[in-house]
Amino acid sequence: MPNHELPIGEADEDCATRVTREPLSAEQATELARTFKAIGDPVRLRLLSLIASHAGGEACVCDVTEAFDLSGPTISHHLKVLREAGLITGDRRGTWIYYRVRPEALRQLSESLLPAAETAVTA
Amino acid sequence: MPNHELPIGEADEDCATRVTREPLSAEQATELARTFKAIGDPVRLRLLSLIASHAGGEACVCDVTEAFDLSGPTISHHLKVLREAGLITGDRRGTWIYYRVRPEALRQLSESLLPAAETAVTA
Repeated sequence: MPNHELPIGEADEDCATRVTREPLSAEQATELARTFKAIGDPVRLRLLSLIASHAGGEACVCDVTEAFDLSGPTISHHLKVLREAGLITGDRRGTWIYYRVRPEALRQLSESLLPAAETAVTA
Repeated sequence: MPNHELPIGEADEDCATRVTREPLSAEQATELARTFKAIGDPVRLRLLSLIASHAGGEACVCDVTEAFDLSGPTISHHLKVLREAGLITGDRRGTWIYYRVRPEALRQLSESLLPAAETAVTA
């Protein structure tokens, strides 16, 4: 079974890290914890939620700023953390970067938390 | 079904917070981010994993200490964070507290991350 460098996004389902099935190695835990830490912040979690649920499945800073009492640069910083965690992608078009969630990354993160004996069947 | 004091575990599946379906309120984001922050740490994620995969589904500090180069009190602190996040329960028996994961809490946390259009069917 191949090693995967990233906790989410690259592995197929059978190889996805599962927290509950066997003890995580220190390396697996470090990678996966980094991703959970990215969403362990209310602003970032709301940003992820705003992007995921925005019309067309994408949003730019201009679309989400009004939901927060935060500066544009602060919001951009949080978006960068989400992007570096592999949870969103950004696509520059003209002045703005449009962000989308990576559904496969969310799905794998979701799967990593399922109780050991359970298999997610999504429909 | 008993009530749980914690951010996850109260709602039934239909009412579980879903990050991707609609924008989280600030309150929902604060509660959910607290739980993700609890597992946004490599030591706590490994502890959760060690407990979940331990023989009998439970473990005490005595069972997990050797996996870490950390003192007992430090490990106990991390276990407390996991417990306060509602992810594990502790049951004192004699000298030791035996910890178990709360599968329903993990399941709801897992569900909160699923892409909007998907429904988890676990088997």
